[in-house]
Amino acid sequence: METLLRRCQIRSQIVRECIAEFLGLYILIGSGAAAQVVTSRGTHGDYLTIQLGSALGAVFGIFVARGVSGAHLNPVYSLSLCVLGRHPWKKLPLYSLSHLVGAFLGAATVYLQYYDAIQTFSGGELLVAGPNATAGIFCSYPADHLSFWGGLVDQVVATALFLLCCVALEDQRNGPLPDGLHPVLVGALILTMGVSMGSNCGFPLNPARDLGPRLFTFVAGWGEEVFKAGGGWWWVPIVAPFVGGLLGTLTYELLIEAHHQTTPQSPQQEQEAVELEEVVVDSGNNSDTLCTYAVWMAVILSQFVQLEKFQQFLKPETFYWVITVISLMPVLEAGEEASLAIL
Amino acid sequence: METLLRRCQIRSQIVRECIAEFLGLYILIGSGAAAQVVTSRGTHGDYLTIQLGSALGAVFGIFVARGVSGAHLNPVYSLSLCVLGRHPWKKLPLYSLSHLVGAFLGAATVYLQYYDAIQTFSGGELLVAGPNATAGIFCSYPADHLSFWGGLVDQVVATALFLLCCVALEDQRNGPLPDGLHPVLVGALILTMGVSMGSNCGFPLNPARDLGPRLFTFVAGWGEEVFKAGGGWWWVPIVAPFVGGLLGTLTYELLIEAHHQTTPQSPQQEQEAVELEEVVVDSGNNSDTLCTYAVWMAVILSQFVQLEKFQQFLKPETFYWVITVISLMPVLEAGEEASLAIL
Amino acid sequence: METLLRRCQIRSQIVRECIAEFLGLYILIGSGAAAQVVTSRGTHGDYLTIQLGSALGAVFGIFVARGVSGAHLNPVYSLSLCVLGRHPWKKLPLYSLSHLVGAFLGAATVYLQYYDAIQTFSGGELLVAGPNATAGIFCSYPADHLSFWGGLVDQVVATALFLLCCVALEDQRNGPLPDGLHPVLVGALILTMGVSMGSNCGFPLNPARDLGPRLFTFVAGWGEEVFKAGGGWWWVPIVAPFVGGLLGTLTYELLIEAHHQTTPQSPQQEQEAVELEEVVVDSGNNSDTLCTYAVWMAVILSQFVQLEKFQQFLKPETFYWVITVISLMPVLEAGEEASLAIL
Amino acid sequence: METLLRRCQIRSQIVRECIAEFLGLYILIGSGAAAQVVTSRGTHGDYLTIQLGSALGAVFGIFVARGVSGAHLNPVYSLSLCVLGRHPWKKLPLYSLSHLVGAFLGAATVYLQYYDAIQTFSGGELLVAGPNATAGIFCSYPADHLSFWGGLVDQVVATALFLLCCVALEDQRNGPLPDGLHPVLVGALILTMGVSMGSNCGFPLNPARDLGPRLFTFVAGWGEEVFKAGGGWWWVPIVAPFVGGLLGTLTYELLIEAHHQTTPQSPQQEQEAVELEEVVVDSGNNSDTLCTYAVWMAVILSQFVQLEKFQQFLKPETFYWVITVISLMPVLEAGEEASLAIL
Repeated sequence: METLLRRCQIRSQIVRECIAEFLGLYILIGSGAAAQVVTSRGTHGDYLTIQLGSALGAVFGIFVARGVSGAHLNPVYSLSLCVLGRHPWKKLPLYSLSHLVGAFLGAATVYLQYYDAIQTFSGGELLVAGPNATAGIFCSYPADHLSFWGGLVDQVVATALFLLCCVALEDQRNGPLPDGLHPVLVGALILTMGVSMGSNCGFPLNPARDLGPRLFTFVAGWGEEVFKAGGGWWWVPIVAPFVGGLLGTLTYELLIEAHHQTTPQSPQQEQEAVELEEVVVDSGNNSDTLCTYAVWMAVILSQFVQLEKFQQFLKPETFYWVITVISLMPVLEAGEEASLAIL
Repeated sequence: METLLRRCQIRSQIVRECIAEFLGLYILIGSGAAAQVVTSRGTHGDYLTIQLGSALGAVFGIFVARGVSGAHLNPVYSLSLCVLGRHPWKKLPLYSLSHLVGAFLGAATVYLQYYDAIQTFSGGELLVAGPNATAGIFCSYPADHLSFWGGLVDQVVATALFLLCCVALEDQRNGPLPDGLHPVLVGALILTMGVSMGSNCGFPLNPARDLGPRLFTFVAGWGEEVFKAGGGWWWVPIVAPFVGGLLGTLTYELLIEAHHQTTPQSPQQEQEAVELEEVVVDSGNNSDTLCTYAVWMAVILSQFVQLEKFQQFLKPETFYWVITVISLMPVLEAGEEASLAIL
Repeated sequence: METLLRRCQIRSQIVRECIAEFLGLYILIGSGAAAQVVTSRGTHGDYLTIQLGSALGAVFGIFVARGVSGAHLNPVYSLSLCVLGRHPWKKLPLYSLSHLVGAFLGAATVYLQYYDAIQTFSGGELLVAGPNATAGIFCSYPADHLSFWGGLVDQVVATALFLLCCVALEDQRNGPLPDGLHPVLVGALILTMGVSMGSNCGFPLNPARDLGPRLFTFVAGWGEEVFKAGGGWWWVPIVAPFVGGLLGTLTYELLIEAHHQTTPQSPQQEQEAVELEEVVVDSGNNSDTLCTYAVWMAVILSQFVQLEKFQQFLKPETFYWVITVISLMPVLEAGEEASLAIL
Repeated sequence: METLLRRCQIRSQIVRECIAEFLGLYILIGSGAAAQVVTSRGTHGDYLTIQLGSALGAVFGIFVARGVSGAHLNPVYSLSLCVLGRHPWKKLPLYSLSHLVGAFLGAATVYLQYYDAIQTFSGGELLVAGPNATAGIFCSYPADHLSFWGGLVDQVVATALFLLCCVALEDQRNGPLPDGLHPVLVGALILTMGVSMGSNCGFPLNPARDLGPRLFTFVAGWGEEVFKAGGGWWWVPIVAPFVGGLLGTLTYELLIEAHHQTTPQSPQQEQEAVELEEVVVDSGNNSDTLCTYAVWMAVILSQFVQLEKFQQFLKPETFYWVITVISLMPVLEAGEEASLAIL
């Protein structure tokens, strides 16, 4: 057996990583609990078990892939790492493709396993909407109350919070984490998203996890309605998570990680750093406290002054401009890195 | 990117801590699950998912802030640490302000994300009471059966148990805890509070977490009813947690932490300590056992003797005087420390 | 503050331990979730949240007491440790008394906190049975279908499995456990009991946890009906757990722990042990395999042969005699140790 | 006590292991939560509590047995380890027998504990189907909608994913895991299976866990209907898990574990390995990337081309041939090892 396996060994790092990412997302989708709850009409689980299934599926997807590729399992996370310079841009499309194929085949496996149940539940008709709809088992569709802008904002906010916490969990300087606990915490984070941000449009958070199963339902019999439903909703969970992911990553970087004290390289630098530190701390005790008070006061006051304006500000449209600016950043970044590579 | 971030670096410790506390509470609120359950009328979750959302939101709030500021995320916890002399009193108002601003903006984010759902659910009217009330998504209101004294006692008891356990988890001499498990356990503690002490008034436990969103609902359209509801309930979840928090902290200190054996500084002291210890243990075996029996017997007997009086004692009013005395302690303490600082 | 606390320091080990056990059980009861679910008539939780509340309450009770007294929190567990010779018999009654007082005061706190809710729910009448019964919030009563023998067997089996797993978790030679995970696993064990053995009589498992709150309800207004209900049920959750606890502890000791290889003291002994080991392993490969096959075959065959007898054997009465024999063991043990202490 | 226990010590390794496996599965079954939910007609738990009970029962079964035998608790897992050459084939039947006996006695204990409840619920008649059926408490029966092939596929897919994740958790080179977390993660994995793959036929996953209780219900009064129900369903959860388990184990081995870099034995080999590595990495950057793109593209294209064929491919029958080939592997393997042992 051992020798048999050794003969199959792949030595190329990138191929191994792609296979690991593929298998991780395959498991993540393959253990989706929505099929069970939908087809059993709620007798074998409820909303919480669907979320538990998603979260735990992700945990084991991560455990399968973490040692080989780091278990991104989400193109948004890969993009964030690229923007932060912790992952080569070159690998991004390959990883994304692996995710897509894994999600596609994972959805196919769920369909295979629940073939009888889906046929019985839907009476043989594969529908996207209505009481016997089964497309919602595989990918996300917006709730009736959700407007287009509302859906966009929902996805941006949810993915921003998700990535912010993901990046925080990875930040070794913010506090150590026992090895093996990290995948469990990411699963808990997905559960948090599910129980608090799932009712608008099912918190896709992950373009590959949404597009792969959607493509599968397209070819497997649900037809082009999967792209038409919700007023052409399908591209929102592909674009919005990238924007939200960058927003969240940058928020964490700007508010927390950028300010970790850098460790000095030589003893002399260390000496200087200590002296500098002392000066900072000394002056900090006098002026910083006042300064911080002032800043917070200004923030609070400004909000009360804008009492009337505030309600208009809460319209989702104003959000749009902030997002556009942010979404240009990785393009610039990629261009910069590309030009550096050429030079 | 790295250089861009480095240019934004803040070197002042206190500003960094305030930002971390702000972001931590922002995440704690931002992932509140009540909006989802209320606006979906229970189809996307139930009471348990709300509590899971709160608890897990707190877990990730702590993970974001723990490395920078220790992740208090609650003015009551900051106060307890100040009283125990483990946190400078000077930072207390700054931390509390950061908490308040974080909670305010977190509530704003929830409103932004659930704008469509809240409008559809409430028919456009933002109400504090009634079947279409939405104010309960953001902050706590008392249940119909709850009297004023009952609410006060509920908050004091719940926060006392909460802080008692928080301080116990922090107590290194009571037993080691793997790094990274601590935030998860605080989350589990919040879940415990939610499933066992949430039906009276929604276990705020945290003045900032309650006042911040309440201020937001005030400015965002629910109007001054948010302060009038429940007979002017709003100040109870601000004052009572401080009282309960001190009660719980002092209970743990007096019953457990004060009695940990102090580690001696020099070998000679150590020698004496060992000898003393032996004497204590020796005599303990004879007299202490008897003594403890006697104490417990007295406690038990006194309770049976007071059989008739007991029922009157259980009135919440008697509780009031105990609380008043305890709530004076931090004032004295602060005064003492202030006078020491002056001297 | 520090000096204030130091002045209160108790140096007697036994008094400290009793206080810790008292506080641990006080927290365990104080965070009981049944009051919330009962008085809200299921709107603020369901069966699962009650079990989560019990389990998590125990987790934090253990975290509070573990560093001082080892957090037994259950007279049955103390008894098991005494029988195994890992805890002095002398401390057993003191620990049990502390547990009882903690449970009594914990129940009083729950009553204080839910005073308004219980009064509203029950219409002012404190009843033990019927649709508005509130006594079940505090201690266990048997379900209607449960016979006397059935209740006894239920308690013995449940406590046996509970203690078997508790002792297994403590067994360092069975596998290491990260410090800090142990209390969480005990909580998970209590949750397991709750979701799988709670419908017959509410899985008390703990004499103090049942008797303390029962005494409280007796003095607080429910009257002597708390002892009369269920045909004088009250003594079953006091006696049966001790029997079951011993059964479970001894099962683990006899089946697993007794067979751990003892580590030899001197190099020579080590040498001999290794040689012996080799002989055992050598012969084991030939004869043991056959022998084990034979034993299992005999077990299986004997059960199929007894096909007709089997159904009668399943009557709970036959269980009774096994239990009687086992329950005599600690008496003998205590006597033996007492006589040794005298000598 | 100590001496008493030492006298009972068994020194044979294989007997100890069998006893541990027996006790582990006994606990796994003994804490089954289905009896409680069924006999209380859903008032004491719901679908989620059944799954929590199964998962946590397995966690504590593992904790009891892990130090002695490694806690397989599943003949499928033992078989997988044998195929991978990590467990002697000779022990496989012994382990499986221990599992069977443990499951049989575990089911007997559940019946003993719920004797009154089952009698009351079923009106004294022990039935396999209908509204008062109680056989489903002990072992799996297919849902009405499930066809024969659907059931086979469901079991193969579920066990494949289960074993794939189990083997991944065991793979030390994929990433370290704190000792003590492993049993908890296996429990979480079982919960994942329960919430996402339980509605077709109750996810047995474990031949011994299904056959043992089935035999018990056969002798205890449910009669031969337990083997006839579901069109002779009983052998599917015995055969299919072995096939699925091998499929999952081999998938992980071929896709992930086979490609871990082997650590070289001597410095010279190390040197060569490093050089080889560099060559691989160098060439990889140019050709591998292209190559991987090409492979994924081919996979994707082939699936779109087969658009029409695809729907027929999704019939479970095509799955059958894949399975047959794979199920022959362990036979060959066992034969090979047997012949080696003879030589």
